[in-house]
This record gives sequence, C-alpha cells and structure tokens, in this order.
Amino acid sequence: MATGEFELIDRFLTRLGAQRDDVLLGVGDDAALVRPPPGLELALAADAIVEGVHFPVGLAAADVGHRVLAINLSDMAAMGAEPAWALLTLTLPEGSADWVRAFAAGLHELARLHGVALVGGDTTSGPLTASVTIAGFVPAGQALRRTGAGPGDEIWISGTPGDAAAGLAALKGSLDAPADILAPLVERFRRPSPRVALGLVLRGVARACIDLSDGLCADLGKLCAASGVAAAVDSTLLPRSAALRAAMDPEASRQLVLGGGDDYELLFALPPGVDAGSLARSAGVALTRIGTFRRGAGVTVDGEVPDRDLAHGFDHFTRQR
Amino acid sequence: MATGEFELIDRFLTRLGAQRDDVLLGVGDDAALVRPPPGLELALAADAIVEGVHFPVGLAAADVGHRVLAINLSDMAAMGAEPAWALLTLTLPEGSADWVRAFAAGLHELARLHGVALVGGDTTSGPLTASVTIAGFVPAGQALRRTGAGPGDEIWISGTPGDAAAGLAALKGSLDAPADILAPLVERFRRPSPRVALGLVLRGVARACIDLSDGLCADLGKLCAASGVAAAVDSTLLPRSAALRAAMDPEASRQLVLGGGDDYELLFALPPGVDAGSLARSAGVALTRIGTFRRGAGVTVDGEVPDRDLAHGFDHFTRQR
Repeated sequence: MATGEFELIDRFLTRLGAQRDDVLLGVGDDAALVRPPPGLELALAADAIVEGVHFPVGLAAADVGHRVLAINLSDMAAMGAEPAWALLTLTLPEGSADWVRAFAAGLHELARLHGVALVGGDTTSGPLTASVTIAGFVPAGQALRRTGAGPGDEIWISGTPGDAAAGLAALKGSLDAPADILAPLVERFRRPSPRVALGLVLRGVARACIDLSDGLCADLGKLCAASGVAAAVDSTLLPRSAALRAAMDPEASRQLVLGGGDDYELLFALPPGVDAGSLARSAGVALTRIGTFRRGAGVTVDGEVPDRDLAHGFDHFTRQR
Repeated sequence: MATGEFELIDRFLTRLGAQRDDVLLGVGDDAALVRPPPGLELALAADAIVEGVHFPVGLAAADVGHRVLAINLSDMAAMGAEPAWALLTLTLPEGSADWVRAFAAGLHELARLHGVALVGGDTTSGPLTASVTIAGFVPAGQALRRTGAGPGDEIWISGTPGDAAAGLAALKGSLDAPADILAPLVERFRRPSPRVALGLVLRGVARACIDLSDGLCADLGKLCAASGVAAAVDSTLLPRSAALRAAMDPEASRQLVLGGGDDYELLFALPPGVDAGSLARSAGVALTRIGTFRRGAGVTVDGEVPDRDLAHGFDHFTRQR
C-alpha cells in the first residue's frame, strides 16, 4: 500500500461519529482526552471481529463497520450504560482505501445514531480484523449485571432471536426461500440493532441482563451460572418473526431461535408484576416472556436439557462459520 | 481449538495486572465497571500489533504480551498520563493455550509494574493479532500534546534511540556482532520500557511531547507539523549506547538513531533554562538535548533534509519488516 493510501485511510477514520463536548482532544495525538461526567461509573468493553470467523468473506464494508460498533454498543446495552466514546484498531490488507471509506461510513452512521464519538485508534496492514473498545456512563450502582437473577424471576427477551442466524444461512446460500422473505432476515444479520434504549429503561427494573451474541440457550446459561439459578424455558412462548416462520419449518426455526447467534437482543430477569408493555413502548422494541428462573443450575427447554450445540452456541474456536 | 482450550485461555486473561480499588467489576460480565477519579481528564489510546508486521514470527509470547501493553503505556507517557485500566482483544490460531499462558505472563508483569488492571477484552480465533486500549488519568489541562513547541525551544529525547532497530536486525540475523554486544540491543527490542515516569515529571514543564515509535526523524516531523515549527537536529549531539557503538560503524548507527523505530522513548520540547538533569534523575532515564526548534516547517539534520526513508520512518504499509 502506498503511503498516500495509508494517509487517505487515516483521514477516513478521523472525526467519525457524533461531535461531543466531553471530547477535549480526538484522533491525531498520542492519545485522546475526554472528560468523564462527575459521579458516574464508566462501563468499558472491547470486542473484535475477524473476516471469515465472525462474518463471511465479502460482506459489504459498510456492514462490517456497522457490525464492529454494534456488538460493542450491545455490551453497553446489556449493562444499562449510555455509550459515549469508542476507539478502533483496524488491520487490513493492501489496496483497501475504497473498502475503508465504506467501512467508515457504516461505522459513522451507527455512531451518530447513538451519540458516540470515535476518539482514537490505529490502522495497520494485516489480515482483515477490526477491534473496538467502547466506554459508556452508568449512574453509580445501577449497572445491569449478570448476577442478580433469583428463583421466581421471569425470563424476558427483546426482539425475535434466530433471525440473524437465518440471515447468515441465506447469505451463505444454505437457506433457500423467496428473496422477499429472506431480505429482512439478511438485514438482521447485516445490520444488528443494539438495544441501547432498552438497557437504559431496564436500569432499576431488571435484576440481571445479558446480550444474545452466541445464542439464546448459551447466553441464558451464562446468566444462570453468574446468578446461581436455573432457567426453565417454555418453547411455546418463543417469539418467531413472520419472515422466519415463512422461511423455515417449525422445528428448524426452533433450533435457530434457541441456538443461533448474532442477534444482539437482550435477555433479562424481571421480578413478577413488572409492566413489560410500558418498558417495550419506552424502548421501541417487542419484549416476550419465555420462561422462569428457578432454584438450581442450568437451562431446560420444556423440561429437557438442550443438546450440546444449543447449550454452547457459537464458539469461535470450535464452530467457525 | 477445543472448547476446553478456549475456556483455559479465557482463564489466563482474567485478573491480569494490578488490583485496583477503582475497578468495581472486571473481566466476566458484558462490560467492566470502573470509577474515574473526580476532576481529572481521561487519556484514551489504542494500538494493535500483528505478527510478521510489528514483530517477527516466532518472537517469544511473553515478549509479545509485554510489547502490546508497552506501546500503549508509551502513548500514556507521551501525554503525561498515569495509566490505570486496559482492555485486550486477541485473535490467535488454534492450539495456542501454552502460547497464551506465556503472553499473559509477559503482559501481567508489565501491567503490575505500572499499576494497570486488565479489565476486559475478547479472545477469538484468527491470525495472531493483539490490540490493547488503555485509559489513564491526567489533571485538567495538563496533558502533554504535540502542539505546543515554539521557536527557540530545545529538542530533547530520552534514552538511546536506534538500539531497538539494531536489536531487531540482530534477531533477524542481519546484524552480526558478538553475542554479549547484541544482547542489550535485542533486549531493547524485546522489552521496550515505556517512559511513564518521565511523562509525569514533564507535565507543566515540556511544551510538547511525542513518543518514538516510527523513528526519530519521522516522529519529530509529526511534532513539528502539529506545532507549526521546524526542527534543527545537530547529529553530533545524538546519544548512542555503548552497545550500538560497539556493534556498528558510526555511519550505519547514525541511520538507525535517526530512522529506526520501536524505541518508545519520548521526544519533547523544553524552554531554554530548564534543569533537565533534575528531570532525568526524577524519571530515572538519561535525557539528551539534540537540537532546537525554529520558525518554519520540517526537520533538518546538520542543516540538511533527511532522505525519504529517515523522514518517513517505519510505515507499516510500505516497509513491512
């Protein structure tokens, strides 16, 4: 890659996202300078994605830019944090200036939507890998952790899990259905919507929360382990989108709803009696009760332990897609 | 990689570095929770390293762990910030559990030395790439930027630049000398010492600062551009370590001092009359005046513009090592 192209790429990655008054110095020095608001805690998370592991080779650059920020915003959502600042490290092959322009546009659009400023980072040559660190604010003691669910609490999820996995299958040519049925599923994989607004309204209400990245059963299992409870899922309560119902038979779609990854919906514990309809309206996303937390350990679906694939979900080491 | 190995790797990367009271929740939830000190600004930086680009294939894992944190600590040093929290994303090939154990040990040792807690991150399969984001504290308005150098200010550097580039040449077999001469040079490449203590004593004293990662002339050129000044370097003032003088002839070592990368020393502007000896004693590192900032633009060495290689330094896209 010529030095000119390198400089071009650096320019694409300057001043991305929202302009924020608490950013005193952005991209361009040895570090950014930001001013944390007084009295708040900071939530910090970092996630990386690798071409051919987390997204298929050839996925549009703007989708990759959206995705690497979305998965980090989803971590903020799962903590009930208000995202503020992000840093990006990007390694990419030579001859990538056009790719980076589109990548930056995808990242910029989502960052602006959530009021996030890209304040720093690093670009270098190498295999296509993008890593984002995000920082957000949460009032002291109000973060949503994985540890607070208790027996008797209800299991709730946002949106319609399984759609993203169906969309990925369609992108890879392993799910066949009319294009107008597949389109919304593919869109759910290409452009996940992190549930930041939902995380904020769940503060002080939900007893525990996690985002769905590896699959419903797998992530529910993590929340159970952290909280020291069991989860009993009733599969008749599982929501399925109209597109998923149209694209697949009921048993196949059940597998995707329980085991598919990449949805970036929230799964959370509510004490009985909470007005979830009001929460859903505030957050602008459908919420569905899918079961109950109980004494014990582990996840059951209709009283049975899910098979190993569902229980482990997407493992980047064992089941590369 | 088996799921068991993945879990093992995750365990290596939990609770690395210092234990800090301001870390309310570390690795293991959707995000970490930290408490920023009141009234301070946060310095944020992120840098990634890729095997075969930033370090030779086969470099010891502990050195890689040291290095990815060191280059980020160096960014804190260059801002005069006190490092506090770090996040790590690591992509690595299958079968890497032993490698990660040694990597974690190298990172842990340096993190503890600087009081830094590793609070979050992500591990996944892929080509060997490590990315760290670091956060540090700096009193409001006291950060060292690149922009404050003025005509008449003196150009100072810490340590002995060129050693790391000579050490890398030795590692790659392209520099031949007795082993006891090469050893300290190789050590300077393998284990750079970020000048955090120096950054802290330069607050309120230095007018501008940058760390030397790409090479003395290249990084000095960036500081000049940011400050809107020229730099006149006197090559007779350049410090050279005893090992470098023993390993190379004067002209070859001059090229490395001016153009070699990876030193992670600091270069800074001091107004005339500062007691640099006192700064050096406080920081525990030798400081050398190498020239003067002037009106104008660009870097000259003994009145001449350095050739293109020296002026651009290490470009990860054009001169992969």
